[in-house]
Amino acid sequence: MRGTVLYGPGDVRFEEVPEPKILHPTDAIIRLSATCVCGSDLWPYRGLNDVTEPMAMGHEYCGVVVEVGSAVTSVKPGQFVVGSFCLSDNTCPHCRYGFQSSCEQREFMTGAQAPLARVPLADGTLVATAEMPADDLIPSLLAASDVLGTGWYAADAARVKPGSTVVVVGDGAVGLMGVLSARQMGAERIIAMSRHKTRQDLALEYGATDIISERGDAGVARIKELTKGIGADSVLECVGTRESMMQAIHCTRPGGSIGYVGVPHGVELDGQMLFFSQTGMLGGPAPVRRFLPHLMDLVLKREITPGKVFDLALPLKDVAEGYRAMDERRAIKTLLRP
Amino acid sequence: MRGTVLYGPGDVRFEEVPEPKILHPTDAIIRLSATCVCGSDLWPYRGLNDVTEPMAMGHEYCGVVVEVGSAVTSVKPGQFVVGSFCLSDNTCPHCRYGFQSSCEQREFMTGAQAPLARVPLADGTLVATAEMPADDLIPSLLAASDVLGTGWYAADAARVKPGSTVVVVGDGAVGLMGVLSARQMGAERIIAMSRHKTRQDLALEYGATDIISERGDAGVARIKELTKGIGADSVLECVGTRESMMQAIHCTRPGGSIGYVGVPHGVELDGQMLFFSQTGMLGGPAPVRRFLPHLMDLVLKREITPGKVFDLALPLKDVAEGYRAMDERRAIKTLLRP
Repeated sequence: MRGTVLYGPGDVRFEEVPEPKILHPTDAIIRLSATCVCGSDLWPYRGLNDVTEPMAMGHEYCGVVVEVGSAVTSVKPGQFVVGSFCLSDNTCPHCRYGFQSSCEQREFMTGAQAPLARVPLADGTLVATAEMPADDLIPSLLAASDVLGTGWYAADAARVKPGSTVVVVGDGAVGLMGVLSARQMGAERIIAMSRHKTRQDLALEYGATDIISERGDAGVARIKELTKGIGADSVLECVGTRESMMQAIHCTRPGGSIGYVGVPHGVELDGQMLFFSQTGMLGGPAPVRRFLPHLMDLVLKREITPGKVFDLALPLKDVAEGYRAMDERRAIKTLLRP
Repeated sequence: MRGTVLYGPGDVRFEEVPEPKILHPTDAIIRLSATCVCGSDLWPYRGLNDVTEPMAMGHEYCGVVVEVGSAVTSVKPGQFVVGSFCLSDNTCPHCRYGFQSSCEQREFMTGAQAPLARVPLADGTLVATAEMPADDLIPSLLAASDVLGTGWYAADAARVKPGSTVVVVGDGAVGLMGVLSARQMGAERIIAMSRHKTRQDLALEYGATDIISERGDAGVARIKELTKGIGADSVLECVGTRESMMQAIHCTRPGGSIGYVGVPHGVELDGQMLFFSQTGMLGGPAPVRRFLPHLMDLVLKREITPGKVFDLALPLKDVAEGYRAMDERRAIKTLLRP
């Protein structure tokens, strides 16, 4: 079969790769209904992470089980499944505490930008639907695999509650999913920080009540103005730069909380600044598995449409163009159909 | 009258100072029943904070109201009161959110190591008892003014719950109050990190179930061993150094929480390390006022005895010896009686 391999900055190829096989009794093989390109795939693509050897790309996935290892009991061939980008056994103490992304056996999914993929720890990672979902639901179910689950975790970590005032820093796919999640959790006011018309429009559609195009100090000042000088109860940090993190901290009210899901790059936090800000902080790779059954349920009941975040759909063989379009910010997120 | 003034490192004097007067209609003047020396008083005493002019010392206090400004309505002359070291109006949005230590009108108390003191924002800061408390309760009521409230906040910020496994980093007065607080909140296991026999004994008396004398990596390894490799649900960081903060982070389980109340000195946190640790963090100056009525109630009902943390009691005129004893670690905390 042909799959997606990154060789170095800007060099992503769709080329012949071995078909995945069951390697451990806990593995499953799935045939992908759809996969996509993640914002984090752009780090090695842009040379921000080192690429020391060719990398099989893709960690967001949904599809039909074709084979399972001898120890797998919760899914079977023919079932439609969605899984988290973090593979987990869902039984260890960290999983039972709701932090499957720190599972004692944690692995990260790879090689999903392909027609077939191996999913390790299938029992603890995959969630099956009762029946085959309608085709138009596939993009939204795929979103649950990472970006929706990550945006949801950001809102959960930031303790969004009914009536909350929420700020979302970052208008990428995860930020937009954060807006949707905050709305689902009953936030009264959702202030999205965005400068791009198409993203602003989608944020409004997902439930944003205010859009701010200012950044940095001007952005913080605008939020203070909108919140009568108080700041936000909850802030979702969905970027990971020093500027975005400081913006998040400075627009959170004392005693408010930040959920940060953008992997920090070059971020150093001064302990005393953080102390006197009195902001609660919780971040990390999202424990998507904790939320997956609920999120899939919301999609299947057509209560949410996270799949709208895919504003470009391509055949899998055109994956290189999918990376380019996101790199050049022509697309928010690229869906790929095998 | 004579009061306590710090002139520079090691130079604390008990000398003639002006009697406090009502300066604003919201002020009260109290006659102190007792006051004490705080761990944070040792920073300027040790030259760790600059002393650019003589400083009136003391921010922990309880006593009898002798005079109130024209706007004060909630306390009156003759009443016994305890107040927080953070002065607050208790009506602004931050106060109503439970973060009185970030009150829009916040001031920090000063000049309480004296027979009389002015308490600004009296209505929002002071809590009166129904009647004059027994003399033996004075040390415990005084503790509520800062160290008990701060230890309690650390446990609250670290989300201690019934059944929790808790680690307390730091065996100073605040750490010991953290042990007491975690016990009151129903923690099942309380691991206190301490190397000093008298402090270990008091920690055990306050409810610690385990004492660890190792520090740094060895301390973290010991905690991992005691928690079957999982780490603690809640960690109370009551020191504020880089080493103590890293120790707190490394012994918290993924998804667990750190309440940090030691003012960070020289602490820089790497964003990516914090991200992958998945530890929740909340710190800052304690909003003691939020907890004060409950804590005073526990003391008055003789359910807790935080006053045992004072292992040295001196007449106020010997305040310089009180500083020396704490600086040389001969005393955990010095009580001063005017």
